[in-house]
Amino acid sequence: MTLKIAHPTLMIDTRIAQANLQKMVSKAQKHHLKLVPHFKTHQSAEVGEWFRQVGIDAISVSSIKMAKYFASHGWENINIAFPVNIRGVEELNELSKKVNLSFHIVNVESAKYLCESLKHTCQFFIEIDAGYHRTGVSNKDLEKIDQILHKTQGSILHFKGFYIHAGHTYHADAKGLSTIHQTSLNALRQLKAHYINDYPKLICRYGDTPSASIMDDFIGVDELGPGNFIFYDLTQAQIGSCSKGDIAVALACPVVDKNKERREIVIHGGGVHLAKDKLEDKLGAIYGQMVWLSEDRWSAPVEGAYVRSISQEHGILRVSDAIYNQIQIGDVVGILPVHSCMTADAMKAYWTLSGDKIEHLEGLSL
Amino acid sequence: MTLKIAHPTLMIDTRIAQANLQKMVSKAQKHHLKLVPHFKTHQSAEVGEWFRQVGIDAISVSSIKMAKYFASHGWENINIAFPVNIRGVEELNELSKKVNLSFHIVNVESAKYLCESLKHTCQFFIEIDAGYHRTGVSNKDLEKIDQILHKTQGSILHFKGFYIHAGHTYHADAKGLSTIHQTSLNALRQLKAHYINDYPKLICRYGDTPSASIMDDFIGVDELGPGNFIFYDLTQAQIGSCSKGDIAVALACPVVDKNKERREIVIHGGGVHLAKDKLEDKLGAIYGQMVWLSEDRWSAPVEGAYVRSISQEHGILRVSDAIYNQIQIGDVVGILPVHSCMTADAMKAYWTLSGDKIEHLEGLSL
Repeated sequence: MTLKIAHPTLMIDTRIAQANLQKMVSKAQKHHLKLVPHFKTHQSAEVGEWFRQVGIDAISVSSIKMAKYFASHGWENINIAFPVNIRGVEELNELSKKVNLSFHIVNVESAKYLCESLKHTCQFFIEIDAGYHRTGVSNKDLEKIDQILHKTQGSILHFKGFYIHAGHTYHADAKGLSTIHQTSLNALRQLKAHYINDYPKLICRYGDTPSASIMDDFIGVDELGPGNFIFYDLTQAQIGSCSKGDIAVALACPVVDKNKERREIVIHGGGVHLAKDKLEDKLGAIYGQMVWLSEDRWSAPVEGAYVRSISQEHGILRVSDAIYNQIQIGDVVGILPVHSCMTADAMKAYWTLSGDKIEHLEGLSL
Repeated sequence: MTLKIAHPTLMIDTRIAQANLQKMVSKAQKHHLKLVPHFKTHQSAEVGEWFRQVGIDAISVSSIKMAKYFASHGWENINIAFPVNIRGVEELNELSKKVNLSFHIVNVESAKYLCESLKHTCQFFIEIDAGYHRTGVSNKDLEKIDQILHKTQGSILHFKGFYIHAGHTYHADAKGLSTIHQTSLNALRQLKAHYINDYPKLICRYGDTPSASIMDDFIGVDELGPGNFIFYDLTQAQIGSCSKGDIAVALACPVVDKNKERREIVIHGGGVHLAKDKLEDKLGAIYGQMVWLSEDRWSAPVEGAYVRSISQEHGILRVSDAIYNQIQIGDVVGILPVHSCMTADAMKAYWTLSGDKIEHLEGLSL
């Protein structure tokens, strides 16, 4: 590794990330979908440039802050994929002066407020809840959809279409995933059939990373909107969206202690670095999996070498006898994250394997 | 509230925080202990000044980065309460040129390396594991302690004493806490008795926030080292270290949607704001508890109004009928955090109730 690592450092393998991107671009092309990726995973202008180079011209983000950041880096078509926060109306007015801005409307109250308060044309998706139950209007609730459409009719707020994020795919097995996918597709198809005459340009945007990576039927969908796929992570590998070899970020962590009795390696790398997302196996919680770092790459993940507990700054890696003996105090090991979006947000910058820094929004003083 | 809140914003009630500080100062005085607080909770030079004003002159931190930050703000006695990361030796040399630096040694390898590599005198604690099993030398392992002392004898590395962080108090009930406390005290007393002749100045530093807040026997201990008490949080309230009224930080979150069927309030406030630490009750996970925000304070926590699920930017608050009807889209509600250290680290700044910003290390471009 060209970079001299003294502290927890988030490494990015740009070859893996760009291959993940290329694969998703091909997938979208194959299905004649416009790829409108979510940028909340990487939150990086420089990573965003890779998307631009493969023809992406529209993106999603998950906050007004992110929208401002990417607008300042030349992105002109930005969807804030979040129930619109009407307290940010001044910033929405600033943004919509400069870019084609859209956001999600999920209630009549926000629609009413914005019709009265926005100064420039904005578009909106009605976010649809087809079973995830986090947010969105139920696909069965045509009355509420009609109310929103009625309220915004003829206003500065233009209806763009329907958006589904089926986040419950993250907790599904292969069969469950397929069921969720079909339910989401059916919801979109029915809504489209119902509203297309009144809104002939309406768009259906869909596709979390599991669905977009694994599924192969997108009839009725116009735009594909995954985010995590640029890096993937252990959660996605468990779902089947990727192999562990497709994971494009790893946290490099100094080894500070070893405990032979417990076969534990203590690393500087805790919740403020990896975040605290976890998976479970028979032996308990998993907060990350170890890889060996070498000059210009990292190894396949080491079997049975998982971060098993985590506190603010400490991580405890439990390993086999053979691995235990190969790791010395003062070494640096890599940890594949459970949830790369959260790890990237916590780390606030990336370092390439050739030692270049890549900025992340959260590392900037804005 | 004087501050106009448009986005998730970490509020600090300085009166509560300073009362928490004063109470801990009194507790330490009562037991003739030197209070050497841990600053990893607040990570703020300005909050640090409150400690200085009540006579604190020595602190703990949990990383070299934090040590550099507080050294640059005039702190001259800094303990990095973490198994020393020997890859940071150059920074340790820079720091120990300027301040009285100590850190934790938990293995002979690090001691050997530092004896050969340090340029200026440093002190070290041997961190003792009396049952937490995260890190540290077992209090039974006198052989390893002797090896570390032998290795550093006559070197630039001076033995300061023993340090215990009994982090398993965080998962204990009242009786368990008392048992852990006595076990820790006994370990320190035995070690002190064993080594005091050879090291007449040796110090025993001890006291996580639960022990320091609740217990009333510290015989054998010289220095008290809690950190979280400055803010406390829901975890500490559950343990019994504080009442919920002692919690000094609350995340102000805009309300973006409501779901009447599920009695859910959707807030902008997710894992990147609160972090993902959780408690559990009969109904499931708790990621925070709601308070009402008013001009110059927040209310007592609202019974049964908990953040029940969380994703990157979303929080889902489940509430009673009565509370549901009192909250409107576009309102701002406060959320008491489950783990204030992690929330502060994620939020990177505080705002006082009178609208002033207080800096946090993570919000700076260093």
